[in-house]
Amino acid sequence: MNIDAKSLRQVNALKARYGKNAPSTLGPWNDHFELLLSHRSVRRFKPDPIPDGAIQNIIAAAQSSATSSNLQAWAVVMITDAAQKAEMAKIADGQKQIEECPVFLLWVADLARSKRVAESAAADLDGSNFFEAFLVAAIDAAIAAQNATVAAESIGLSTVYIGAMRNDMRRVAKLINLPPGSAVVFGLCLGHAAPGAEGEVKPRLPQSAVLFKDKYGVEQEEQLIESYDGDMTDFSKRQGMDADSWSGRVLARLGSGDGNVMRGRQHLKKAIKALGFHLR
Amino acid sequence: MNIDAKSLRQVNALKARYGKNAPSTLGPWNDHFELLLSHRSVRRFKPDPIPDGAIQNIIAAAQSSATSSNLQAWAVVMITDAAQKAEMAKIADGQKQIEECPVFLLWVADLARSKRVAESAAADLDGSNFFEAFLVAAIDAAIAAQNATVAAESIGLSTVYIGAMRNDMRRVAKLINLPPGSAVVFGLCLGHAAPGAEGEVKPRLPQSAVLFKDKYGVEQEEQLIESYDGDMTDFSKRQGMDADSWSGRVLARLGSGDGNVMRGRQHLKKAIKALGFHLR
Repeated sequence: MNIDAKSLRQVNALKARYGKNAPSTLGPWNDHFELLLSHRSVRRFKPDPIPDGAIQNIIAAAQSSATSSNLQAWAVVMITDAAQKAEMAKIADGQKQIEECPVFLLWVADLARSKRVAESAAADLDGSNFFEAFLVAAIDAAIAAQNATVAAESIGLSTVYIGAMRNDMRRVAKLINLPPGSAVVFGLCLGHAAPGAEGEVKPRLPQSAVLFKDKYGVEQEEQLIESYDGDMTDFSKRQGMDADSWSGRVLARLGSGDGNVMRGRQHLKKAIKALGFHLR
Repeated sequence: MNIDAKSLRQVNALKARYGKNAPSTLGPWNDHFELLLSHRSVRRFKPDPIPDGAIQNIIAAAQSSATSSNLQAWAVVMITDAAQKAEMAKIADGQKQIEECPVFLLWVADLARSKRVAESAAADLDGSNFFEAFLVAAIDAAIAAQNATVAAESIGLSTVYIGAMRNDMRRVAKLINLPPGSAVVFGLCLGHAAPGAEGEVKPRLPQSAVLFKDKYGVEQEEQLIESYDGDMTDFSKRQGMDADSWSGRVLARLGSGDGNVMRGRQHLKKAIKALGFHLR
């Protein structure tokens, strides 16, 4: 069978992402799919600065994403100062990529701006005290950050999300002068990948383990996870990492609530409340 | 001054998004920025089905996004059944677009899969009981959904996020058989825009109101919001909507905690706990 160049790229991209469980049918395809499917998180960066005007357009992409009721309940603080990045790396248990990357973006779930709007109007903002409002802000920030990620990768920059900012949300907030009603939900490193740091595309769970029609279902799950466990073990070996299965890693990450594994995040709710979210 | 076609597209895209507050400098630009900046949420759909294989590749894009510790703590349930969509529209206070769009995607913050992995291994999953675990799952789902949105829009489909699934999370969960430890955090309509439903690109806050360097700051904020309030009033008039300012809308959305405005979401924390997230 002949296959045209574009279809071949699609087949290869799906195979890189799903291994032997790649879907065998073809669908609509273009350069955007190509970019999205090629994502790899990168954890070592060159010191080279990012191009002039890149941040402006990356943030314009972020602001172009959907936002609940147009609240735009997020903000972003760009860190380039070496001392400040070193502090952030400390909070993240020494993750060196935070110091290496030329730009470290802190994504803020921000109800403080809305509160200032209410203050100016001498109005109350009782709705901001609910759990819903915190969730809106966190989701707004995540959606915006993903657009920023796609935009950055489209110009050859590499990225990695840093969830470890949640190890000590209060310390992060203090370092960047956050007002009450705002909290950094994660960081994002931006920069040029160090030689060899891009690595392979990481396999994901077979699509039929995450996409369901009409109702959630787990009928085939055991075999699908078993198959994926094997893929991840092979992937890790090829990358020179501990050859643990996916299931093994899930248990390592969520298997215990003790401080060692959670690294401070067992106190997250307390920290969020201390930062002025009432979570009612 | 001469300006090449590509630069002109950049200038126009920034102007559409920021109006008179558009940045005046140029940065890196390509078709991906063009796509991201052109986003509009669409609320009226044609009944035309979406192309064969589109969902497969859209979900492949979603799965290619970053995920905390590779947990992949999300799932997606695709709703095409008319009766099921009608039920969802009811929960969303009658939002017709849920019934109109050919595909309605429900994005699930999913710790239930990890719990099944732990069960199979006769291991405990105490870490899943923390607030942190819920937040990881919700952010994972949001990041994945945004990649799906970008992918869908790249092939000419339109989208709109439906936060109103949180009006009654428990009813949504029941309708799609969600297991304990999973919850729909939002929906996403996918389909072809009805004629005239695409509308203009919606202006956003000036970039200097959301992007800060080194520290969060509000020095210029009052003037920036005043300027943006005017932009949004003008935009709303042009779109034939109530000509309220942005500040006015923020107060309408968050200004009171009563049931009318929150539409059930004042009980969100209770619902999330009832669905098996301990939020410790």
